[in-house]
Amino acid sequence: MLIVPESKIAGLMTREAAFDAVEKVFAAMAAGDAYNFPVVREAIGHEDALYGFKGGFDRAGLTLGLKAGGYWPNNLEKRDLINHQSTVFLFDPDTGKAKAMVGGNLLTALRTAAASSVSIKHLARDDAKVLGMVGAGHQATFQLRAALEQRDFEKVIGWNYHPEMLPNIEKVANEAGLPFEAVDLPGLTEADVVISITSAFSPSVMADHISAGTHIACMGTDTKGKQEVEAALLTRATVFTDEVAQSVTIGEAQHAIGEGLIREEDVFQLGAVINGTHPGRTSADQITLFDGTGVGLQDLAVAASVVDLAVEQGIAIEVDF
Amino acid sequence: MLIVPESKIAGLMTREAAFDAVEKVFAAMAAGDAYNFPVVREAIGHEDALYGFKGGFDRAGLTLGLKAGGYWPNNLEKRDLINHQSTVFLFDPDTGKAKAMVGGNLLTALRTAAASSVSIKHLARDDAKVLGMVGAGHQATFQLRAALEQRDFEKVIGWNYHPEMLPNIEKVANEAGLPFEAVDLPGLTEADVVISITSAFSPSVMADHISAGTHIACMGTDTKGKQEVEAALLTRATVFTDEVAQSVTIGEAQHAIGEGLIREEDVFQLGAVINGTHPGRTSADQITLFDGTGVGLQDLAVAASVVDLAVEQGIAIEVDF
Repeated sequence: MLIVPESKIAGLMTREAAFDAVEKVFAAMAAGDAYNFPVVREAIGHEDALYGFKGGFDRAGLTLGLKAGGYWPNNLEKRDLINHQSTVFLFDPDTGKAKAMVGGNLLTALRTAAASSVSIKHLARDDAKVLGMVGAGHQATFQLRAALEQRDFEKVIGWNYHPEMLPNIEKVANEAGLPFEAVDLPGLTEADVVISITSAFSPSVMADHISAGTHIACMGTDTKGKQEVEAALLTRATVFTDEVAQSVTIGEAQHAIGEGLIREEDVFQLGAVINGTHPGRTSADQITLFDGTGVGLQDLAVAASVVDLAVEQGIAIEVDF
Repeated sequence: MLIVPESKIAGLMTREAAFDAVEKVFAAMAAGDAYNFPVVREAIGHEDALYGFKGGFDRAGLTLGLKAGGYWPNNLEKRDLINHQSTVFLFDPDTGKAKAMVGGNLLTALRTAAASSVSIKHLARDDAKVLGMVGAGHQATFQLRAALEQRDFEKVIGWNYHPEMLPNIEKVANEAGLPFEAVDLPGLTEADVVISITSAFSPSVMADHISAGTHIACMGTDTKGKQEVEAALLTRATVFTDEVAQSVTIGEAQHAIGEGLIREEDVFQLGAVINGTHPGRTSADQITLFDGTGVGLQDLAVAASVVDLAVEQGIAIEVDF
């Protein structure tokens, strides 16, 4: 039984390894080799916490297990701990024995950033120059860092409901040697790629804020009721997702589906593009939209990857279990 | 983060501690202080394994977490490992951080035995003398050992589909200083308490095999389709269970409910008897039946108990996680 504590993840896991792990598991999902289990998510009636389990099995990668944890809204204020807390447990699919326990906090940020990054690689125009950010919180910095590696961006523009947070992402842009410009929402029409990463329950990005040819990754909507972009945008876009079942129920597509603007058959797996069974972007003025809802298999994939790295580097703690 | 490996459980956990933990959590469930989460159970399409998660939260005991694992039917033959493999993970309900990892194999046997034992304590006649066993596998030995502590039994009788296995339980009876007698199924009428612990999909115990005044604990039915006793027996008995929702869908009561012989309102929580909000047995010739379906909270309760014992005895492995 191997243990990789949360404190070791930052020194082990790279954006490249997270990208590879997530790209591979999206492909496995689309090929029918990997599937997610039903999600358990419970308001436990203590500390206003949401707690649950996201499990899955990847037959191709032989990765079995779950991420357990959730959202403890009082952690930061009361205990100086981050509010999202999670742990990944991997099992040996040949025997059912516990195989590894891995801190899941930083991994969750990395795998979420990797998902939009994979979508940019496969769906954005090759000549994309301007990256637009909607949202400027902690997770937005991860998204931006990962996205900048996918194209030769020349500028980052950004909007946030609380403009005083924009320096968070300005700093990341500048570290990458790029200028940053705060814009209003209509100013997003300049962007070739947009990432929205907010926890909004009403849309910020309207359909006419997105120009023809843009790729937009909607990364914030993972619950019934949340919404980042106007539903009408999905009728103008070709819509991709990590998992269709989640996209149409708890993802960004829930609203366009609910309003009858698109059908479930209009939502495609990003993995199919990776596998070459869906053509993805077919013209320079097509809008592509990735609805990133977040699946357990992403967590398992990056956790398995970090366990390999920890073993290679002699950092994994071995416990006779 | 504390770790209690499977190999340490036998030396730490006692039947008394398992009994106390299970009795307490049944009471908490009936009082509305503890609840089980939806169960995830997946045929993963590898090694014919069934894998899943049973989680829950006990607000009274502040125990949060899950048992993960399942059934790997080829383990014993291929790898000399037991087929049921599980691990319990406990979380701090104040913060969401992982708190303990505990081997779940022996604990599962102990908590299942504790459940029938708790039912015997609260529902069997005080003057019960003859204990009848239906089933003689590995789990039956745990059931018998725990049951014998609840009344001054004078004899054990037993039946098994494969009679050559009966020496398993004869040995346990003899160790407790009691005679053992193999019987045919009608011979069970002699018993004051019966425990059925098989994995049958059709009933062995018919309604007329059970005498007035008997308490029967049906411990083997935890899946749609399984059945140990004739549905008609449930109309003659007062029916108790660990969790009503499971009893009527995957427990022994599924058949009597499905055939319209009893209603969901006819199935009572054993915890209510423990709490004194249900009278339990009210006459010496009443038949009481406990439908033990097995809930995640039982696993969490015994795991929390063994972690306490491991800490007291300096055996828990502490990992900086």
